[in-house]
Amino acid sequence: MRQSQLFTKTRKDAPKDEVSKNAQLLIRAGYIHKEMAGVYAFLPLGLRVFNNIVAIIRQEMNAIGGQELSMTALQDPNVWKATGRWSDEAIDVWFKTNLKSGGELGLGTTHEEPITALMTEYISSYKNLPSAVYQFQTKFRNELRAKSGIMRTREFVMKDMYSFSRSEEEFRKFYEVAAAAYTKVFARVGLGDATYRTFASGGSFSKFSDEFQTVSDAGEDTIYVHEGKKIAVNKEVYTDDILAELGLKKEELVEKKAIEVGNIFPLATRFSEALKLTYKDETGKDQLVIMGCYGIGPARVMGTVAELLSDDKGLVWPAEIAPYAVHLIELSNGNKDVANEAGEIYKELTSAGIEVLWDDREARAGEKFADSDLLGIPLRIVVSEKTLAEGKFECVYRASGKTEHKSLPEITENFTS
Amino acid sequence: MRQSQLFTKTRKDAPKDEVSKNAQLLIRAGYIHKEMAGVYAFLPLGLRVFNNIVAIIRQEMNAIGGQELSMTALQDPNVWKATGRWSDEAIDVWFKTNLKSGGELGLGTTHEEPITALMTEYISSYKNLPSAVYQFQTKFRNELRAKSGIMRTREFVMKDMYSFSRSEEEFRKFYEVAAAAYTKVFARVGLGDATYRTFASGGSFSKFSDEFQTVSDAGEDTIYVHEGKKIAVNKEVYTDDILAELGLKKEELVEKKAIEVGNIFPLATRFSEALKLTYKDETGKDQLVIMGCYGIGPARVMGTVAELLSDDKGLVWPAEIAPYAVHLIELSNGNKDVANEAGEIYKELTSAGIEVLWDDREARAGEKFADSDLLGIPLRIVVSEKTLAEGKFECVYRASGKTEHKSLPEITENFTS
Repeated sequence: MRQSQLFTKTRKDAPKDEVSKNAQLLIRAGYIHKEMAGVYAFLPLGLRVFNNIVAIIRQEMNAIGGQELSMTALQDPNVWKATGRWSDEAIDVWFKTNLKSGGELGLGTTHEEPITALMTEYISSYKNLPSAVYQFQTKFRNELRAKSGIMRTREFVMKDMYSFSRSEEEFRKFYEVAAAAYTKVFARVGLGDATYRTFASGGSFSKFSDEFQTVSDAGEDTIYVHEGKKIAVNKEVYTDDILAELGLKKEELVEKKAIEVGNIFPLATRFSEALKLTYKDETGKDQLVIMGCYGIGPARVMGTVAELLSDDKGLVWPAEIAPYAVHLIELSNGNKDVANEAGEIYKELTSAGIEVLWDDREARAGEKFADSDLLGIPLRIVVSEKTLAEGKFECVYRASGKTEHKSLPEITENFTS
Repeated sequence: MRQSQLFTKTRKDAPKDEVSKNAQLLIRAGYIHKEMAGVYAFLPLGLRVFNNIVAIIRQEMNAIGGQELSMTALQDPNVWKATGRWSDEAIDVWFKTNLKSGGELGLGTTHEEPITALMTEYISSYKNLPSAVYQFQTKFRNELRAKSGIMRTREFVMKDMYSFSRSEEEFRKFYEVAAAAYTKVFARVGLGDATYRTFASGGSFSKFSDEFQTVSDAGEDTIYVHEGKKIAVNKEVYTDDILAELGLKKEELVEKKAIEVGNIFPLATRFSEALKLTYKDETGKDQLVIMGCYGIGPARVMGTVAELLSDDKGLVWPAEIAPYAVHLIELSNGNKDVANEAGEIYKELTSAGIEVLWDDREARAGEKFADSDLLGIPLRIVVSEKTLAEGKFECVYRASGKTEHKSLPEITENFTS
């Protein structure tokens, strides 16, 4: 895309009430727009990053047999009353509203109830199991405070997957497959090194759940990391008894702040019992379905990447989620040969399937470089009178700062090989 | 995908309270699930159709320079109060809710206000114009009655585009470009022949707007069609004066019921004035931005296709929006050679990029054919002992009912040529 056509622009300052680093950077770079506290719109560049993260998650969920569907935000109270979670005491972040035709509705904070009710129409026999379904669905959470940028908002898309199994053993097998898929997701989005599978409370559903926690000072959670085993324990279950059960020693663990970027949760029969999701086993006997749930918020992942991988010049996107692969900086200064050369490079790269943001604006080199640093596209290619004379183009890698001079075929080859 | 793995199944009957033909068919085929009146979930097959429609619209909006973003469902009252549209008198389908931290919020029924407010941050000079942005965003409408299946719901995704121009002339030019893009969209989804650009009321914004109306007895609108000119007039502006203005004669027009599948709307300065969206012209003088809006609901398009193109056996999807291109029906009856052959065909077609739903279930031929008719995938390929012996496979086209016998290379060639 030609940057001169892009309607967003970089800004010197984020809004004064924006305290989080991720939102400050993303607003300054024109990736997001703050509608109000805890509610953000995604602008073209931000939506591209968001969609890249969604695509990675979708691939990994499909790879483990997840079937995608899309439930609804509006919630019928009946299914929530059946599980005892309609009240504000049970779920303290409900938004509720009223139908003009009469009756109250909720805005979905999570979807265990509607998915369990839906599956009663499709699961009746052991032959229908195991099964796993997922969606990317907007959740609404009536948070009292919203101060972590796009990491904790009142409206956000969540990938939530639900698994349905015949036995605890079958459930556990899928649970570990899902955990491995999560590890892959976090590696692909660039958070692999800093992210730990973390023992956490299972709440009212089971003894433990597993969180994926990314070490960061911006985190709201405290975890105890075992570097050697690449696992951690959430503070909420950090007791002598539990450490003994897990075979971990206090002296091997290091306290860290962390961001919960994902969680997976055994639900046992908590919802299948309340909503009568049963199947007939091989002997014709009714059995309760064993469920699990698996969540990742793509925007929280995006915010975490913005927190962790940025530097004092701006954002730094890993290749798989970057809005564009190449930021082509044209420094033509009215020189038509330079502009033409930039156009040729743009054409050649895009026709090779490489996504390019072409800074064709009339602006000073310093302004273009500063904007480029702020936007954080992995590879910057500079086209100027100098590089034109040389026949090689200046390639600057945003993450490492490394500079190389390469011919166009060398650049293209790097992407395709 | 192997149909034995798909968690949805066909059903004999739709829920008794479901009166619309589109929802009855889509529920019976396992494409959608009714959460409550006017609120539907999209199941895997339905989501695939929906996403195909979204992809077509996205391509056509990108082709005319639209930039995609994503606004929010939660609405800050302030911008709506500024335009006088916060009240139920102005917009009678508001859902409203309350923040736990204090204050009322709305659920977006449309997005003129937030997009106008957002653009004040990015439009300041004539150099920033013209521009057009769009999104696929969930809208919430508190309809008193919901009885048209997925064509009029309380929660639905809308593609809404907004254009920003410097002059009435520049606006009109884009408006016609957008109208042409809409015509392309409706042709690609299979509604081209039955869809008419229709003069309609401009409401409080302008004299006329343009609707795209698809002739159908399930429609809620009445239009007067001019077959020769391929245009129509909505009943709401069907007066002698307006017909004279449009150069149309009553005797050339035929009254029809129709479904509004899209609309485009001149907004003039209705929102830019209220929310102070101005630009400095070449002389440095402040001018109001001229706006337009352009809506299509992908689910309404899907429902309209289900109404129009179905027959008494079930759904009939046009190729571009079908959930799969091929429905491969394996009639193996325990014959391993047939099952293996079906597997080979599946592998070959999918590796050629052709999407296949493979009915590998153990079921009677009659049941498989009835399900296949209901699902409505364009091409059915039958693999049985008979076709195996013949070396050619029975190809049945869902729309025409035409049957051919073709070898695998002949089938593949049809798709790729």
